[in-house]
Formats: sequence, structure tokens, C-alpha cells
Amino acid sequence: MQDIQHIGVYTSGGDAPGMNACLRSTVRTALSNDLEVTGIRRGYEGMIEDDFVEMDRRSVSNIVQTGGTILKSARSKEFRTEAGRARAAENLKANGIDALVAIGGDGTFRGASKLQQEHGISIVGCPGTIDNDLFGTDATIGYDTALNTAIQNIDRIRDTADAHNRLFLIEVMGRDAGFIALNCGIGGGAELVLIPETITEMDMIKERILSLMSAQRRSTIVVVAEGDELGGARGIEQALREDPSFDDIDLRSAILGHTQRGGSPTASDRVLASRLGVAAVEALLDGHTDVMVGMVNGETKLTPLRNVYSRKKSIDYDLLKLTQILS
Amino acid sequence: MQDIQHIGVYTSGGDAPGMNACLRSTVRTALSNDLEVTGIRRGYEGMIEDDFVEMDRRSVSNIVQTGGTILKSARSKEFRTEAGRARAAENLKANGIDALVAIGGDGTFRGASKLQQEHGISIVGCPGTIDNDLFGTDATIGYDTALNTAIQNIDRIRDTADAHNRLFLIEVMGRDAGFIALNCGIGGGAELVLIPETITEMDMIKERILSLMSAQRRSTIVVVAEGDELGGARGIEQALREDPSFDDIDLRSAILGHTQRGGSPTASDRVLASRLGVAAVEALLDGHTDVMVGMVNGETKLTPLRNVYSRKKSIDYDLLKLTQILS
Amino acid sequence: MQDIQHIGVYTSGGDAPGMNACLRSTVRTALSNDLEVTGIRRGYEGMIEDDFVEMDRRSVSNIVQTGGTILKSARSKEFRTEAGRARAAENLKANGIDALVAIGGDGTFRGASKLQQEHGISIVGCPGTIDNDLFGTDATIGYDTALNTAIQNIDRIRDTADAHNRLFLIEVMGRDAGFIALNCGIGGGAELVLIPETITEMDMIKERILSLMSAQRRSTIVVVAEGDELGGARGIEQALREDPSFDDIDLRSAILGHTQRGGSPTASDRVLASRLGVAAVEALLDGHTDVMVGMVNGETKLTPLRNVYSRKKSIDYDLLKLTQILS
Amino acid sequence: MQDIQHIGVYTSGGDAPGMNACLRSTVRTALSNDLEVTGIRRGYEGMIEDDFVEMDRRSVSNIVQTGGTILKSARSKEFRTEAGRARAAENLKANGIDALVAIGGDGTFRGASKLQQEHGISIVGCPGTIDNDLFGTDATIGYDTALNTAIQNIDRIRDTADAHNRLFLIEVMGRDAGFIALNCGIGGGAELVLIPETITEMDMIKERILSLMSAQRRSTIVVVAEGDELGGARGIEQALREDPSFDDIDLRSAILGHTQRGGSPTASDRVLASRLGVAAVEALLDGHTDVMVGMVNGETKLTPLRNVYSRKKSIDYDLLKLTQILS
Repeated sequence: MQDIQHIGVYTSGGDAPGMNACLRSTVRTALSNDLEVTGIRRGYEGMIEDDFVEMDRRSVSNIVQTGGTILKSARSKEFRTEAGRARAAENLKANGIDALVAIGGDGTFRGASKLQQEHGISIVGCPGTIDNDLFGTDATIGYDTALNTAIQNIDRIRDTADAHNRLFLIEVMGRDAGFIALNCGIGGGAELVLIPETITEMDMIKERILSLMSAQRRSTIVVVAEGDELGGARGIEQALREDPSFDDIDLRSAILGHTQRGGSPTASDRVLASRLGVAAVEALLDGHTDVMVGMVNGETKLTPLRNVYSRKKSIDYDLLKLTQILS
Repeated sequence: MQDIQHIGVYTSGGDAPGMNACLRSTVRTALSNDLEVTGIRRGYEGMIEDDFVEMDRRSVSNIVQTGGTILKSARSKEFRTEAGRARAAENLKANGIDALVAIGGDGTFRGASKLQQEHGISIVGCPGTIDNDLFGTDATIGYDTALNTAIQNIDRIRDTADAHNRLFLIEVMGRDAGFIALNCGIGGGAELVLIPETITEMDMIKERILSLMSAQRRSTIVVVAEGDELGGARGIEQALREDPSFDDIDLRSAILGHTQRGGSPTASDRVLASRLGVAAVEALLDGHTDVMVGMVNGETKLTPLRNVYSRKKSIDYDLLKLTQILS
Repeated sequence: MQDIQHIGVYTSGGDAPGMNACLRSTVRTALSNDLEVTGIRRGYEGMIEDDFVEMDRRSVSNIVQTGGTILKSARSKEFRTEAGRARAAENLKANGIDALVAIGGDGTFRGASKLQQEHGISIVGCPGTIDNDLFGTDATIGYDTALNTAIQNIDRIRDTADAHNRLFLIEVMGRDAGFIALNCGIGGGAELVLIPETITEMDMIKERILSLMSAQRRSTIVVVAEGDELGGARGIEQALREDPSFDDIDLRSAILGHTQRGGSPTASDRVLASRLGVAAVEALLDGHTDVMVGMVNGETKLTPLRNVYSRKKSIDYDLLKLTQILS
Repeated sequence: MQDIQHIGVYTSGGDAPGMNACLRSTVRTALSNDLEVTGIRRGYEGMIEDDFVEMDRRSVSNIVQTGGTILKSARSKEFRTEAGRARAAENLKANGIDALVAIGGDGTFRGASKLQQEHGISIVGCPGTIDNDLFGTDATIGYDTALNTAIQNIDRIRDTADAHNRLFLIEVMGRDAGFIALNCGIGGGAELVLIPETITEMDMIKERILSLMSAQRRSTIVVVAEGDELGGARGIEQALREDPSFDDIDLRSAILGHTQRGGSPTASDRVLASRLGVAAVEALLDGHTDVMVGMVNGETKLTPLRNVYSRKKSIDYDLLKLTQILS
């Protein structure tokens, strides 16, 4: 086992609120352990372009409450090539960096795994993505904030839906996973939730909406994950508009989109990010590599990176049942 | 002049935060003047369908802080016909209602004017619309809240824009007017603002964006009013994507849409709404009709309804200049 | 086992955000199981005074997002007497209520236990309190919201602390428990956290603050639980002011107090409250009584009420260590 | 008239949200006019200690949305002496600074006036204080944000007040002026508002509260300015507790305190701050000095500094009447 004296830290992939809190925690834990710390700007792109910056305690002052990432993020085509990764590894070695903390999601970890395997650089990942679709942790950094932001916007839309007895289709983030949609649906008091994990017949949806709206003569909110197989809010809107039974229904779509990604992190994301930053550095010091630190049942846990990106985290089907009871 | 003993109050058109605070103020001012008060549900539709509810002090308790409208709103095709308005007038008289307070926008006031002219019912309007495009008042009820909601969402998007050095086109409400876009642009720190009131050449926009992005190598935010002649955010996005100079620029659109409409009203909207509710009742008691109460330079002012919907309120061109200095 | 056909539900003790979401879920789950549901207003006081209201699906519409409790809460001296509880039991029987769902904290559950033991009324509790100090659940309803509200206010105070290089003592809720203080401290980026669970020497605190402030010549934030043995923020402020070493330090206290208690519940509190409401009704239907439903490691779990109020839930000492690494 | 080529800018006195937006606007306007710009840290203290920093467009990037002040603020005893001001003037001259933009309140402007008179340095002030008590402007920078923050916290407290039918005394900022209290009272739906500008008899207050609470048997909120002659919330609480008529009333106080000062500025404060920053630089370039730029009836206006701090801005007595109608 190599003796670690200098770690590099970077954020990569889509930004998520709490990435800065995780950076802060990683940097300060490393410094408390007498390690040197280098920040790598713009993820793998910066690693290839030697865009490095030395970090001290002050570099991460006053960022626990900020969204985005002070180290910035980017996608790198070059890093997907062997040559790109070799150049990155050279830069790391030239700067004396022994080990890495990678904050990001799926794609970030695939890259990290390859770098570790090809160049023997110790690496530990922290799950930073609003989608919560990573195996090996109950929650990812940024997920709780995205959920709260989405629910705030749903609350606002409900004011209008109620004022006009309107049907609203609200699309939230989630290309492959329904975590945000499901929890938004329950928390936002939606009458119906549509997620990629379940196949829903359009006829059933129509029937359910019509029955809800005729029974109550009032507003109805449907939360749709962007990755739902019916084509997100736009797809469903179009299908409903083509059906004459919906002619008298005042129908609108809203796509929350990028408003869900930024913003000051919630309490829960700040604490999670802070804990995982500590755990990542401690894992490196304990000789671990090619793993992600996650929080499972209130305790930090290590999961091999290949499991993180090859296994699928399952939604809680009890929650799906819940939306039916509550609507 | 008819002696007023019983007023009706309704909200109509798109809902706006502060409508409830205005209702509360109207009802309580009327009751303090020993008037009876009836709430008319769903605007002109409820007026035609006799959907009336008696209001006391408690009916408007605990609503000063809520978005939407407890009396609901609706569009009424029937009210656009003479027969529809005659039926509405009959219902008002059958219920003993002498005078009306109408909370809404342009369309609401056109309807109110006709009702007044054809059936002699005294009517005073309160400007309730998020668009701020009503002549006769410095601000409309709901505008300040919509502005703040939009800016909060722009702040969130800026986190992501900065993290990725991205170009973001953010579309805000404003079909005919650039008030929201202009103030959002300044308050949100946008580099460029596009509004319906000015004609902008696509070439100029492209040049400006490219020069901003190359000079700074960082994120750029363009705020676009939905009614901008270039086709809103989508229109501009398409034009930029077709230009090879933008091939290397990471470009996204976000349409804030209905998230801007609801939500708990701001301090300023609550106070404005409360003042205008008082002023509307007092105007009726003073014998005024066919007018809107507005706030101009800190004082309440009456403007004939026909001026409100026939004249155009001008944006402040100093603000437009400001966006250039600040970007 | 008695066959349950009619349940009563009430909120008691200090109000907590999410109590309404829990009510909504309890009522709708009961109705979905063809039970009758009665709401009991003002907790035990209403139970004694026969202040009952029938609940249907509409009674709990549009409350998932509201703070406080629509059934209100109260303290009842009379319920602490045998005679009082006998009167409450009579009222329940006279109204045909077979079983109860009690939403509240420690004191609520003590009362519920006595009612169950003396009068054989089936009762299941839901943990509703911002303090998170109940054994048998990872989080209580309202805790996550209180935490986020406190952190938002700490963020605001930090702006001022930073602007003036000031020392701020911020007191948060927590008479017997440091959960809020500890998590606020980490999430709010505090330099020091003082909680009832640990004994701290005033001399050590002084030394730590002086060393932090001289090292950095900048602002310092100390988060204090109201129940800390040094007398909360005021107690510490006084001690520091009496020490001449603090003469040159610009020192202020802020007591967050009741601002932490209300407000729209967070996503997490809404989902937790919704799940526990379902679980409480299902527990009653399964024949359970004298238990609380909690959420432990992501699953609902029943705990005898006597354990809830006799055992102490422990804070996570890892978090305490974290505050030292991060400051 | 001296030809201005280099301006200095500083923030002083209590921090206020929007100060950073004003800095940003001042710096960018000056740069657009080909002036050099120096930031003076920690107000007059930094001026005396030569704590200067050069400003370019990037120094004020990404701060339009932040509370506090990046230039920091401080109180300076030494600047109150002639010797102190002489030293400050020397530093300014040594650094080639011809003119100053001062962002702050009363005390800041008194100091600025003396510096101008004793050392002939051109100076224009921008009103930055949450109290809104400056003559010469309809609103000060930070006031709208403070109002909204206070109202958000009042909304939260109302949840609890309603849940328990409680009487709440809420103290808001305002040592000499009732602007915040009055507008918070109206916007927060308070039943009673107590401000320094009016003398209120304790007996009248008691009578009013008792009549409100007995009539409605529900919660009552009293908003008190900290400078009210009855001793703020604590003073009134004590007086009520000593009166046996209040024995049965559940009574609490909450002091909002420093939570009102920081936080991200509202739309209105950002736009106001941006406009005044431009106006201040333009006023200097036009040869003005010893004046404050304010916004009066939607237009920028210059007022001699001595008028700003010698005249008292009056509250709007119509608003006081409004609180009685609405409660």
C-alpha cells in the first residue's frame, strides 16, 4: 500500500447542490491529516489540461451554503480515449498527486475506474448527482435539494391549478429513474405519478384523470418523470389533446427543467456532503481504492465503483402504492 | 348617485399572488363601512351561474399570505355575449348587489366596463396580474412576486451555468411587455435581455454573445420575454444552433413558465393589495365607477377603465441601458 | 381483538410542520379502508370538551404543504387527572370512536398510554415534534423543516458576521437534545457547537474562540442549543463579556426561537408524514395498540409507547467530531 | 471642477442586502466610463489603514445575488477624530483617488460630509440600510429584503399562533423608525402594530388585545418595532404578564433580531441598488458632491447629505389606519 501524502479532488458531470460542501469537507479533512490538497478544475478536462489549483482551509471558506461547484465541471471527450487518460495520469504524477477524491455520478465513476486500473492511481468516489440513481447510497448529494426545489415550484403551480380547476402535467428530472418524480408526487400532493420504472397504459391514465376530475370538479396534478416512456409531459399532453373527452378540460404542461439543479443545498445535503467528504479521505488513508463512499442506514459504507455503475438502485414500491391511497 | 349597501367582489383572468390579500382588504373595508359583502366565485362564469357566497371577516382570515385566489377564476365565453352579461346583471340584482370590486387585468376590465355601461352597475377595478402591463398604476398586484420567483429560479440556473461555462437562454413571462424580463435581467445579472418592445437583429445578438463568451470564457445568461419577436428562448436557441460559430458553445434553454404565477406574495404585493382593496371600496362609496384604483408615486389614483385597457404602459428605457452597462 | 370501524385522530403538544400531511394521510388511508374518521380539535382538551369534527377526503385537501395543524393543539391540565381522562373516554365512546391516531411527542404519548391502559382504547402514535428526540424513529415529523429553517436564518446571519468580522452566538431549539444544534452547526458552517449532551468548560470555549479569531481574523459562528448547560446564547454571551480578552471582539447573540417551529414542510417531512399516517392506520387494523410508528433505516417500525418516552435517543457522536474537523 | 479619473468605493455601517449589487454597478459604470476603481475594505477603518484593493469587472462577478458586503464594513472610532480623517485623506491621495462613492446610512454620510468639507474630496452617497429611515429616497437598499425576511418569519410564527390560539408579540428591527414594523404588520396580517412614531397607552393595548381575543377566540399577532417607547416585545410582555386579565392567555414573544439583516437581496433591492450605483458615478462625473442619490417617484434624485441626516423621513399614516381596518 502506497503512503498517501497529496490528494487531488474534482467535481465532474452535472453539478449538484452540496458538491461545494463536499469539497470543503474533503479539503479540510485532508489538511487535518497533514496531506497536501490540489483542486482539479473542470473535471477530467482540467486533469488533461493541467488546470490545477492548490487548496488551503481558506479556499473552501463560505461555500458550504452555495450551489454549483467552485471547481467547475465539464464533459471531456478526450478522457474517453486511452491517450487522454494517460495524459491526465502524467499530469497528476507531475504534480505529485498520489490519490483522488472524485465527486460526481455514473460517468464520473466509470472514468475514475479506468484511470485507477490503467494507471494505478488510488481513487475514492463521492456520489454527487441530483438524480439519486446510484447504487450503494441511500441518498446522493444534491437529491434532497432538487426534491425541495421541485416541490416549491409544484406548490406554486398548484395555486394556479386550484384557482382555475385546471389539469396540470408537471415534468420533473429523472431520465432513467423515478426517485424525484415519486417523492415530488407524494410531497406535492399530486393525484398521479408517472415514472420510467413502471409501464402505464395511456387509456388507464385517461380514465383515472377523467374520474378524478369529474368526481371532484377540481384541479388535478400529474407529476411525470422526464424519462417516462409516454414521452414526458409533452407526450402525454399531446395524447390528451387528441382525445375529445378532454376537450372541456383546461390542460397545461410545465417542465421544471434546469431550475431543479442549482440553488443553496438543504440541511440534509450539507450534512450528507460533509460526512461523505470526511469518509472519502479516511477511506483513502485506510488503503481503499476504486470504491464509492455512500450513506446506508445512517452509516458510511464502501461499494466497489463497478457495482455503483453496473447495478440499478430500486425505487421503493411502497411509495408508489402511497400515491394511490393519498390521491 | 345610488346609495351603496351591498358590494360583490370577484377575481378574474390569470391568478396573481396578492389577489387574496386584496380580497381580504376589500371585504374587511366594506364590513367596516357597514356594507354587506358577497363573493362571486369563478369570475364572470360564477356571475352568470349564480355562484355567490356571503363573506364575513372570518371568510378572509389567514389568506393574506396565500397565492392563487380563494374565489377561483375562470374564462367565460358566455359573458362576451350581451345575453350572458344580462344574465349576470340579473343575478347581481336578485342578490341585492349594488356595486362591484373587480380584481384582475385587461380582459376583466373590458368585461366590467360593458357590464357598467349596459346595466348601470357601479364598478371599480383593482389591477391584479403578474405582467405589470396595466396603464394607471406603477405596479400591479402579483408583479413583484413573479419577479422574485423568476429571479430565484435564475439564481439557481446561474449556479449550473457557472459550473459548466454554459450559455443559458431563460424565457420569462411577458407576451406583450418586457417588464418582468427587464427587471429579471438586471436583478438576475443577465448579460443580455430581449423584450417585445425593442426590435433586435439576430446577427447583433450572435455577435454580442460570442464577444462576451470569448472575452471572458465563462457562462452567459440571456433573459428573453416569451413575447419577444425572435420567438422566445426556443426560437433563439434554434437560430444559434444553426450557426456553426456556436458549435463549441454549450447551450441550453429554460422556460420558467407557470412556476412564475403562484406562490406566497411578497411584502410589497401584500401591502399594495391591501391598500388597493381599501381604495376600491372607498372609491365606490365616493360615487366613482368605471375606474381602476392604482398606485402612482406612492399615492392611490383613479384611472378610467377605458384608459387602462386602451393605453399602453411604457417600460423604463433607462433600465434597458442599464443592462448594457452592467453586463 | 376488537374490530375497528371508526378512528379518531388528533394533534397535541407543540405544533410541527408535517402534522397536516400526516393528518391527510391518516384520514385518507382510513377512508380507503372504509373506516369512519373523526378529527378531535385541540388535542386532549378537545377530547374532554367533545370538540369533534367529521373528516372526509375534502377536509384534508390542500394541506400537505401547510405548517401548523388544522386540528389545532393545546395543553390540557384536566387530562392529567383520572377524572379528565374518564370524561375523554366517555366522549370517544359516545361518538363511536374505536381507536385513535395520536400525532405528537413525548407528553402526547404519555397521555395516550394512560388512556389506553385505563379505558382500553386502541391507540397508535405518530412522532410529530421538531426536536427529533423520540426513541423509535430516525427522524420525527417536523425536524427536517426546523433544521432547514434554522440553517436559512444562520446563512443570513453569516452574511452580517462576515461583513463585520464578528463573533455570533446563535441559539437554536433543543431543551434536552442537541440534534438541531449539531446538524445546524455542520450545515451552517459553524466553528463551534454546544449541546446539552456534552459538558463543556467555559475556559475551553474561550480559548477555542480566541484561537479561531486570531488565526483567521474573521467571523466566527457558535451554535448553541437552548438547553446547553452554560445557559444558552445569553449565558455564554454574559460570560464572554465579563472576560477582558473579549473586549476587542465584536460579539452578538441571536435566538432563533419560534421562527423554527412553523412554515411549509420540506419534501422529506411531507413524505415521512405521509408514510407514517398510512402505517399508523395499518397498525391499528392489524391489532396493534400502545405503540408508535417510526421510520428506522428506511422501514416503518413499531415501538411500544413506554419505550418511546422512557428511553433516550442518542445523538451521533461522529457528527460532533465532524464539527471539529470542518471548523 | 476637478476632472475625475479614479474613484474609490466603500460600504460602511450595518450591512444591508443589495450593497454588493450596488458595488457591482458602481464598479462597472465607472469602468465603462474609463475610470479607475479602487475598493476600500472595512469602510473608514480601511481608509485609515490603507486597506485598498483594485477593482475590475471580474472582481464584482457573481455578487448581485449575495447578502452582506464583499468589501466588509466596520465602525471606526479614529475616523471621528480630525487626525483620523486627515490620515484617511492622505491615503486616498497617495493612491490617486479623486472621488468617492459611499454606500451606507446616516453615520456613513456624516463621516463623508466631514471628509468632503475638510479635505475637498468629492463624494456621493448611496442609501444602504435596512431601516429605510433616510430622507431623500423612497426606499433604501436592503429595506425590501429585510421586510420580506421578517414577513417570512412572521408567517412561520403565525402557524404556531394559530395552532395554539396564542398571543404572539413579534419584535422587528427599527430603533427610531416604524417602516419595517408597519409594513410587516400589514403584510403579516398582524392585529396590532406598535411603532416609535406614535405614543400608545398600555391600557389601550390591553383592552384592544382582550377584545380581539375574546371576540374571536383565536390567535393574535402584535408586531412591535424594537424602538417602541413601551420597551419592545419584552417590555410589553412583562406588562401583560403582570395583569391578571392576561392569566388565561397563552402569550409568547419572538425577537427577529439579526435574521432580518442578511440574505440574498430581493428583485426590488437588486434593481434599486443597480440603478443607484450608476446614478452615483454619473453624479460624480457631472460634478456633484456632498449629495446622496435616491429614488423618488421612480426617478433618481440628488439630496444634499446634510439634509439626509438632519431631516426625518415620515412614515405613511394611511398605513397606520390600514392596520385598524384590516385587523
